[in-house]
Amino acid sequence: MDERVREHAEVLVDWSARVETGDNVVLAVGVDAHELAVAVAERLGERGANLLATYSSGEITRAYLQAHDGEFDENPAHELALVEHADVYLSIGGGRNTSATADISSETRQAYNSARATIRDTRLGTRWVSTVHPTRSLAQQANMSYEAYQEFAYDAILRDWESLADEMARLKAELDDGSEVRLVSSGTDLTMRIDGRTAVNSAASVAYDSHNLPSGEVFTAPYATDGEVLFDVPMTIHGESVRNVRLEFDAGEVVEYDAEQGEDVIAEIIDTDDGARRLGELGIGMNRGIDRYTDNILFDEKMGETVHLALGRAYDANLPEGETGNESAVHVDLITDVSEASRLEVDGEVIQRNGQFRWEEGFDASPTQ
Amino acid sequence: MDERVREHAEVLVDWSARVETGDNVVLAVGVDAHELAVAVAERLGERGANLLATYSSGEITRAYLQAHDGEFDENPAHELALVEHADVYLSIGGGRNTSATADISSETRQAYNSARATIRDTRLGTRWVSTVHPTRSLAQQANMSYEAYQEFAYDAILRDWESLADEMARLKAELDDGSEVRLVSSGTDLTMRIDGRTAVNSAASVAYDSHNLPSGEVFTAPYATDGEVLFDVPMTIHGESVRNVRLEFDAGEVVEYDAEQGEDVIAEIIDTDDGARRLGELGIGMNRGIDRYTDNILFDEKMGETVHLALGRAYDANLPEGETGNESAVHVDLITDVSEASRLEVDGEVIQRNGQFRWEEGFDASPTQ
Repeated sequence: MDERVREHAEVLVDWSARVETGDNVVLAVGVDAHELAVAVAERLGERGANLLATYSSGEITRAYLQAHDGEFDENPAHELALVEHADVYLSIGGGRNTSATADISSETRQAYNSARATIRDTRLGTRWVSTVHPTRSLAQQANMSYEAYQEFAYDAILRDWESLADEMARLKAELDDGSEVRLVSSGTDLTMRIDGRTAVNSAASVAYDSHNLPSGEVFTAPYATDGEVLFDVPMTIHGESVRNVRLEFDAGEVVEYDAEQGEDVIAEIIDTDDGARRLGELGIGMNRGIDRYTDNILFDEKMGETVHLALGRAYDANLPEGETGNESAVHVDLITDVSEASRLEVDGEVIQRNGQFRWEEGFDASPTQ
Repeated sequence: MDERVREHAEVLVDWSARVETGDNVVLAVGVDAHELAVAVAERLGERGANLLATYSSGEITRAYLQAHDGEFDENPAHELALVEHADVYLSIGGGRNTSATADISSETRQAYNSARATIRDTRLGTRWVSTVHPTRSLAQQANMSYEAYQEFAYDAILRDWESLADEMARLKAELDDGSEVRLVSSGTDLTMRIDGRTAVNSAASVAYDSHNLPSGEVFTAPYATDGEVLFDVPMTIHGESVRNVRLEFDAGEVVEYDAEQGEDVIAEIIDTDDGARRLGELGIGMNRGIDRYTDNILFDEKMGETVHLALGRAYDANLPEGETGNESAVHVDLITDVSEASRLEVDGEVIQRNGQFRWEEGFDASPTQ
């Protein structure tokens, strides 16, 4: 076994999920993620945790959903009972075809997800972590060779997470003290309120309320959004290519939108429910191990010198205890590049310019623009 | 998709497991059984059942068990809750290496299985069915090409099950009316009591208390076994080749044994517990779609013109309501060929000679021997 696979498993089990003896662990294994699953099983055995592996396959989901009449039972008892009794839920993505469910209608997808809301919420109450095993289909989606993609993925995953967590704590402090964020870039001039919200130092560990591996972002839940934003990082959403999405906000809601490509997908998302017209997340990418877009949200949104915003559901971790944030059946991230001609302000003070934070070398304290 | 895969899924879901709308189904998928899993998912969607797929991998099991200290938690709550809330449990075998767990010690294997006894018993309380997807590793184990193995497997699986069930009902009637069975063949002269026991017409459907696909056997739970038996059908047990096992019984218990190959495996099994020295099953193979041994118990024991006996646990279905049969942590089948120079008697009357039942054409009513 490639030693990097074993290191990936160790980071996932120890740093990310903090697995302990006696933990009941669900390991959701993608069709092509077998090798990582074996390494994770080994680590779980060492820890004396209890392992149940489930199987995640876009082709199985598609076959099931295409054949079903669409009247889905609410929260099937066996699946609900499984997550209710799980301490840890590890999801290892990695299929053979990232477009395997591209021909499932959004109505079917939404009906299925809505019928499982309690299962989803219960799963989000465990120490859950999502990661991916670098597969050939992910390499293809990234326009990369398999070997180069493996290098890329492990650079992003096998970081010094403690050191990155320290750096991200500085940005978190700025956001926690601030009331308003302004993002200015090419095609973008957007203001958002963040007062009363708590930023998450997303250091790829449940100990930081962070549930993705790789991670490396600081995110909060904005509201009262005004202005416009251009998302210039290309993505695939629900199996469709999306490019140069432009959203215009007034008093927190999307009032206009268009896209160079994939506008129908954006329309579907925005029409899901009221919450889908509002932002649920403002995230600032800080993982410099990610040096290019690979059309995979798990990586792209964490990339250093990017900012992302999500339409839809907000995370509880950003909200005061007991307060409900933006609610929606969806949470869809869109990304903008801030490496050039951009600035991020908190209460009028520039904290990042052209991708450099003000505590970094290279930060331009007296710019011409 | 190969149309036979879809037919296999239909037999499994409709004939075998009798899946209905709203059933909570666990589908345990072997690493190489993906294609059948997709077909089963499609059928479950049509039926409006609720699908949760788990992942079965010898490599994952091995990695976990090798790393574990051997002090296993009893019946982990998440796995137990899952089977407690399942109506149907479909297991689709099919790995990449039938010897994937060959280097797990029998102590570890037994400790792991013993710790999960309640999970196992709960699973056996669902409408459970085990089948296999024909894979390259199973073809290899059978010394067959992949294509020839597929033909073989589908001949065994895609039968006219209703018609076979009718034929098997005749043998069941003989056994239910009988008190003593005698099996005579080369190296074998064995008598067993069967009075008070009920034979199962194993027609590959939960409606017949039959849980294997393919099936095609009639089995009961014998006791008070006397005499000796030679199992001349070669097998692999716990990853080891076993050939020409000879058991000698006195008053129901094994008093002597040897084997041309794999005697250590037989010794391990017999030493598991007291019940492992007694028989839990007498089965008579009646599936003539199975025309050769393929070193896979699911098929071999159902083969027409064979008889098998299992050391260990008896099935409740053979016993009067509330009565406990032979108990053991193991149930290991061994097979003998009865196509030549053999006879099976019930209370002194020959019901099968040289593989032919007395209701079949070709049965020799007045033999010289």
